[in-house]
Amino acid sequence: MYNEIIQMAEEMKPVLSERRRDLHRYPELGWCEMRTSSLVARGLKDLGFDEVLAGRDVCDAASRMGLPPEEELERQYRRAVEQGADPEFLPATHGGFTGVIGILRCGEGPTVALRFDIDALPLTETRNASHLPNTEGFASRNPGVMHACGHDGHTTIGLGTAKILAAIRGQLHGTLKLIFQPAEEGVRGAKSIVENGHLDGVDYVLGAHLSGGTDATAGSIGAGRGTTLATTKMDVTFSGKATHAGLSPEKGKNAMLAAATAVLNLHAIPRFGGVSTRINVGKLVAGSGRNMICDHAKLELEVRGGSPEANQYMEDYTRRIISASAEMHGCKAATEFVGVAKCSVNSPELAARVRKIVREEAGIPTLSAPDGLMGSEDYSYLSERVQRQGGQSCYFTNIVRCAGSFHSPEFDFDEMGLVNGVKAFSIIAADLMNP
Amino acid sequence: MYNEIIQMAEEMKPVLSERRRDLHRYPELGWCEMRTSSLVARGLKDLGFDEVLAGRDVCDAASRMGLPPEEELERQYRRAVEQGADPEFLPATHGGFTGVIGILRCGEGPTVALRFDIDALPLTETRNASHLPNTEGFASRNPGVMHACGHDGHTTIGLGTAKILAAIRGQLHGTLKLIFQPAEEGVRGAKSIVENGHLDGVDYVLGAHLSGGTDATAGSIGAGRGTTLATTKMDVTFSGKATHAGLSPEKGKNAMLAAATAVLNLHAIPRFGGVSTRINVGKLVAGSGRNMICDHAKLELEVRGGSPEANQYMEDYTRRIISASAEMHGCKAATEFVGVAKCSVNSPELAARVRKIVREEAGIPTLSAPDGLMGSEDYSYLSERVQRQGGQSCYFTNIVRCAGSFHSPEFDFDEMGLVNGVKAFSIIAADLMNP
Amino acid sequence: MYNEIIQMAEEMKPVLSERRRDLHRYPELGWCEMRTSSLVARGLKDLGFDEVLAGRDVCDAASRMGLPPEEELERQYRRAVEQGADPEFLPATHGGFTGVIGILRCGEGPTVALRFDIDALPLTETRNASHLPNTEGFASRNPGVMHACGHDGHTTIGLGTAKILAAIRGQLHGTLKLIFQPAEEGVRGAKSIVENGHLDGVDYVLGAHLSGGTDATAGSIGAGRGTTLATTKMDVTFSGKATHAGLSPEKGKNAMLAAATAVLNLHAIPRFGGVSTRINVGKLVAGSGRNMICDHAKLELEVRGGSPEANQYMEDYTRRIISASAEMHGCKAATEFVGVAKCSVNSPELAARVRKIVREEAGIPTLSAPDGLMGSEDYSYLSERVQRQGGQSCYFTNIVRCAGSFHSPEFDFDEMGLVNGVKAFSIIAADLMNP
Amino acid sequence: MYNEIIQMAEEMKPVLSERRRDLHRYPELGWCEMRTSSLVARGLKDLGFDEVLAGRDVCDAASRMGLPPEEELERQYRRAVEQGADPEFLPATHGGFTGVIGILRCGEGPTVALRFDIDALPLTETRNASHLPNTEGFASRNPGVMHACGHDGHTTIGLGTAKILAAIRGQLHGTLKLIFQPAEEGVRGAKSIVENGHLDGVDYVLGAHLSGGTDATAGSIGAGRGTTLATTKMDVTFSGKATHAGLSPEKGKNAMLAAATAVLNLHAIPRFGGVSTRINVGKLVAGSGRNMICDHAKLELEVRGGSPEANQYMEDYTRRIISASAEMHGCKAATEFVGVAKCSVNSPELAARVRKIVREEAGIPTLSAPDGLMGSEDYSYLSERVQRQGGQSCYFTNIVRCAGSFHSPEFDFDEMGLVNGVKAFSIIAADLMNP
Repeated sequence: MYNEIIQMAEEMKPVLSERRRDLHRYPELGWCEMRTSSLVARGLKDLGFDEVLAGRDVCDAASRMGLPPEEELERQYRRAVEQGADPEFLPATHGGFTGVIGILRCGEGPTVALRFDIDALPLTETRNASHLPNTEGFASRNPGVMHACGHDGHTTIGLGTAKILAAIRGQLHGTLKLIFQPAEEGVRGAKSIVENGHLDGVDYVLGAHLSGGTDATAGSIGAGRGTTLATTKMDVTFSGKATHAGLSPEKGKNAMLAAATAVLNLHAIPRFGGVSTRINVGKLVAGSGRNMICDHAKLELEVRGGSPEANQYMEDYTRRIISASAEMHGCKAATEFVGVAKCSVNSPELAARVRKIVREEAGIPTLSAPDGLMGSEDYSYLSERVQRQGGQSCYFTNIVRCAGSFHSPEFDFDEMGLVNGVKAFSIIAADLMNP
Repeated sequence: MYNEIIQMAEEMKPVLSERRRDLHRYPELGWCEMRTSSLVARGLKDLGFDEVLAGRDVCDAASRMGLPPEEELERQYRRAVEQGADPEFLPATHGGFTGVIGILRCGEGPTVALRFDIDALPLTETRNASHLPNTEGFASRNPGVMHACGHDGHTTIGLGTAKILAAIRGQLHGTLKLIFQPAEEGVRGAKSIVENGHLDGVDYVLGAHLSGGTDATAGSIGAGRGTTLATTKMDVTFSGKATHAGLSPEKGKNAMLAAATAVLNLHAIPRFGGVSTRINVGKLVAGSGRNMICDHAKLELEVRGGSPEANQYMEDYTRRIISASAEMHGCKAATEFVGVAKCSVNSPELAARVRKIVREEAGIPTLSAPDGLMGSEDYSYLSERVQRQGGQSCYFTNIVRCAGSFHSPEFDFDEMGLVNGVKAFSIIAADLMNP
Repeated sequence: MYNEIIQMAEEMKPVLSERRRDLHRYPELGWCEMRTSSLVARGLKDLGFDEVLAGRDVCDAASRMGLPPEEELERQYRRAVEQGADPEFLPATHGGFTGVIGILRCGEGPTVALRFDIDALPLTETRNASHLPNTEGFASRNPGVMHACGHDGHTTIGLGTAKILAAIRGQLHGTLKLIFQPAEEGVRGAKSIVENGHLDGVDYVLGAHLSGGTDATAGSIGAGRGTTLATTKMDVTFSGKATHAGLSPEKGKNAMLAAATAVLNLHAIPRFGGVSTRINVGKLVAGSGRNMICDHAKLELEVRGGSPEANQYMEDYTRRIISASAEMHGCKAATEFVGVAKCSVNSPELAARVRKIVREEAGIPTLSAPDGLMGSEDYSYLSERVQRQGGQSCYFTNIVRCAGSFHSPEFDFDEMGLVNGVKAFSIIAADLMNP
Repeated sequence: MYNEIIQMAEEMKPVLSERRRDLHRYPELGWCEMRTSSLVARGLKDLGFDEVLAGRDVCDAASRMGLPPEEELERQYRRAVEQGADPEFLPATHGGFTGVIGILRCGEGPTVALRFDIDALPLTETRNASHLPNTEGFASRNPGVMHACGHDGHTTIGLGTAKILAAIRGQLHGTLKLIFQPAEEGVRGAKSIVENGHLDGVDYVLGAHLSGGTDATAGSIGAGRGTTLATTKMDVTFSGKATHAGLSPEKGKNAMLAAATAVLNLHAIPRFGGVSTRINVGKLVAGSGRNMICDHAKLELEVRGGSPEANQYMEDYTRRIISASAEMHGCKAATEFVGVAKCSVNSPELAARVRKIVREEAGIPTLSAPDGLMGSEDYSYLSERVQRQGGQSCYFTNIVRCAGSFHSPEFDFDEMGLVNGVKAFSIIAADLMNP
């Protein structure tokens, strides 16, 4: 069975590449992955999955965090129509109900869930001539949006894995759930899937991320402690008062000064002893015109911590800075929480099993590093639910050579990662469902 | 003759009010005053002005500062059509050629230029129920744009003055030029009119601004030293490098930190001994998403100074702060100059004459204060050109009760200022052209 | 009489220069002017003044602001002994009771008070070879203290004036009070003299400051509107918590960050429309060692404003910044008020009389500028008390060429100012006491 | 032999406690440990050590970093005399030549070096009544100096170990070097000992630090990966220009603004992905008086990094911030490097051997945690030299209950750590010298 999987994965390479490039060309932000979701659902249905859940069946409406404004969702929906969404499945996504779950029922046996994230980032892809998506003509056609984190690859790997496991379903025992999750960026989407009960009764859950490697490590699969950073995402609004900047600056309440003070002090929150922390104010929009004292400012920010305490420290300090920065300049501050992820950690047995089966059956070198991923993942919602029920979780890295750094306009990855990803997920699932 | 003027002005009150409210309802930003310009030109032509200049005849194309992007100009043009622009004069404004000059030739005598500014501000008018434009139904219908500096009143006063002086033209000697100037906010428009030669040969130039008064001063005209602050308007762009804010913040170049450092330090430029200075970063847009290190930031700012030296000090210090803030965080900075005004000062003889004639013939109380206006005015371009040729200049204040402060969403002014403004300008012009 | 005064003043030049250089050599900070006070008292007594008040008779103990610590006062006392203080008058100064008042009773007539300030600044005098006090050997011998504001000159002028007026006392009518005031720097001393009642019943009070002039103005006396800035001086202490900067920075409360945030935001307080404001954090001492989170910081700062409202605005904003900066970083802040001065303004009649008498009788050119002094003066306490009683006040400038700027280590002034100062004060007093 | 050691160590407890409290009472800062060094040398000599090196024989003069000013060294020397320094050994310490090395020659065999650091911190000990040094009367008598990092304990452990090893020298083979190192705080001292050649030919080097434990871990010895943070210590001076803060703030160059900008931005240096970093500006002294623009500021700061790259990143970013902050405000900056430590890591064989021998022979529980110490240690200089020569190094933690956090005024430690420390060092040395 394993040889069959290996062979199918290798033959699939051109198809995977084509699929990935199509997704790369039409990137969609979180909760707007309407074209993407419709095509994923189409693919799963065509492969004969027993159930293909879409729309409101996937995500609990109220648990979706950081939803864009309604008119933006409308605009994205219209664009999905124009860019070749699947007409059968598109309507279900209307209003920000993206995400797809495909279920393959193979009789008695464990329930195995594989999770793939599908959203892109608000970034303008480089026009650099040496950037592969430019030379090969598959750069983003959606202005200001780019797959700069490899989720186009993750989605593709999910569909490739779906094809193989559907083909060998006769040899599998148990239930397979492929979860194509929206809005991972900003850690906004996983909670709504968990809240809808889709992880209840799952015995094994797995996820993966492409990861940049060196000569020595590219081509490997890494499965170690798998810790991720807890994170809290916040939108902060400062409200001040406008006035003429020449005649009477003293009559205003300067939200620009409040915002600048907050930005500097947030980044200056003292580091935490022994545990990683992060802080980033990624976006700031303030004021209307140069000759008026700025009366409003909106910050989009996130904190992270390598332990629940460290994340809480960052969050508490942030609130204090926000509130004091506002008060200092006579402004008011309001904070909205738009995304949360927990610290997660691999189940050691499952991580060991992943390393063993991948190395021995897929012929892919493995690493027990990295100890931790310096990112955050709302995969942590899934793993926490499964582990709490007594199940096991493993998040692994699919290590390939990359151009640019993750989340940069120059990001690209070696497509050998697509084949390796399909091999790894397929063989692991086959192993778990073939006791 | 003066009594005739007074009477006409008082009878005109309802018409002035109606006109002002129409302009208030449809505010237009600098270089987009297309509806406004077309209606002004229409009005002047209907009053029988000998020449009505519009479009490229008014402003020198290359000297227009701070022009909006072309697509914005297109959008505004379409809106002007929808909002009832005059079809004869609208086409001339296409592409940002707003502003109108009306000329009345009355034989031998001095050339007198009166200047009225016509643009609005990028501000959202308050929805407060007690705000007069709300109770009377003439609040702005153009989202995000508002006449919050009284230029709707200035334009109305210009048209009222035009009507009176056209009516008594038989008693006038010399040439009258009414200049309806675009893009005063941001001090972007006057230069292009001067560069087109419209101030050459002018003997007297006058301008005015509505000004907030107390019980004691409301209803007066103030003409004192009339100094205004020199100012320089700049757009600054910081360019950094994006990267994943969790995985590798150290690989980015953080334009957010550069911008916040610049904002705080700009406002902290030490004050100047004995002379007023101002600094305002009125707008800041930075970054794309919360989990990416911010790679670009744009600041819109202005400095002002009560002397050329003080303004230069502010400008030089600003450049140093911008450049060092960028360098500190490994970013690059680019600065574009989008508006400049000079210090101006009234010609003492003309200011005295204005006070005398207004007091004695218009029956309006006068003040020789304020010494200076704490705003900046590109009227300074006009006055400097006229004074350099040996002519005289006077900028006076039309003092009325105001609600809210200038440049705030709550701004409104007592419409008695419309009648007083018409009286003052008409009587002064009549006096200057009746030697 | 006026000619006699002029002649005496001119013959006195070498003596004045010698006296000033002696004072310059031994500068003393506020409330430590022990040597200076003892020599002044000695001088007045030797001139035959009817009363020479010193020690507790001059200043109300409880109203002395910004007093140095007791051990510092002890140290200064010992130094005064070593540096040749007058043994008869020194003991009265013990404990910070500096300041001297000399009274000359000349029968019926008005009471005229002339005020001279006597303290130096905490500044290290330049070692620059071209600095006159270096070439002439009268640079400061007291480390870290320097007469960089010309009060050595003021004291000298006071003694010179005392000599002349004592000599012509037979021609005077009324009471003359010469007030040698301590601790003007930091505006700490005047209040305690006023509180002791020394200005009660005074009809005319005058003060003066040396001022830097150009070729055109040096050698003149300026007496205009004479407005000074109100000011509030504060000492702020931030208290945080120390911890190991490597092991557990998160366990500290970082007073350094609180202080730096306060400093930047204080200087960034928006300027005030139409009225001058100032802010300066002149001194900051924070922390103990580099590997401990800083647990305390002390700031010495001042605000100023050209109107009571503007000064209040600065003071209120400062309190808000201090309190929010502390709170932001979990610290506590305490603020101590250590000096206050008011806005003052000349009595127009007295200013005009000063200009007339100085110009006509002393032969010194006069200016009605400057309108305002951009400094603050606790002379304002004296003038306010006298004007409130119906008396008149005039503060004038004694304009000379200066090297360096005031309060800089390079400061020096042309000693012609000594003679001009003596002439002006003597002639004005003679005129006022000779009705 | 091991039982003998255990017994001696336990009987020694009151002596150790007394010794530690004496050292605690008279803490001395780096390069000023004159009393301490003289007493250590006295002790070693009395125990019969073959060589007792002191003064210039210990530290290479030119390699001493962060030396206090000469007059401070003089003052400390005089205090050491007053506080009971040993008259034989004190003179060698004159001028900042502190540190002692005791050598015991026991024939053929390996050279084993044990290192103990002896300096205190610039911190004022709490007056809190519940603080043990207060209740027991051994709080610091040296104002502003405190053993808040446990080096009083380290020194005591060194002397206790010396006593035991001297007593059993007949059973040892090889050479024992006990290194009492000055100026560990600020990582200033180790380099000068290494540069003098004292680590040449050493086969094993060991060091230890007291460490705060919980119920579960107190009483254990930890020897794990032993990584320490690299660090760079810098003194930064900003030079600006003073001027009168009211009259002409624009003529100054404000070093206060430069310093505050640097402080905030230094703490805001973006965190490093996957590796710990630290930054602390621990001390700042700026300006002279509140009414003068601040013309100088001195910052004492440190950066740290968990890898050479991370430390370099922090150092490079720091230089950029310093230089740009100065330039922004027209000031000049100068940076002096006053301390450097490297990343260090334990030799795994030696760490395992330490754990085994301590557990089995000393009966003390051991931990292979912590992986890393979040502090920095100039022990790294010693370990790097020894490991480079092929020798082995182990730095272990002596875990006890502590009050307060390290480097805080409330710090204290359970004196059971003294006995445990002596046991551990003695048994390890005995084991290494008894092959």
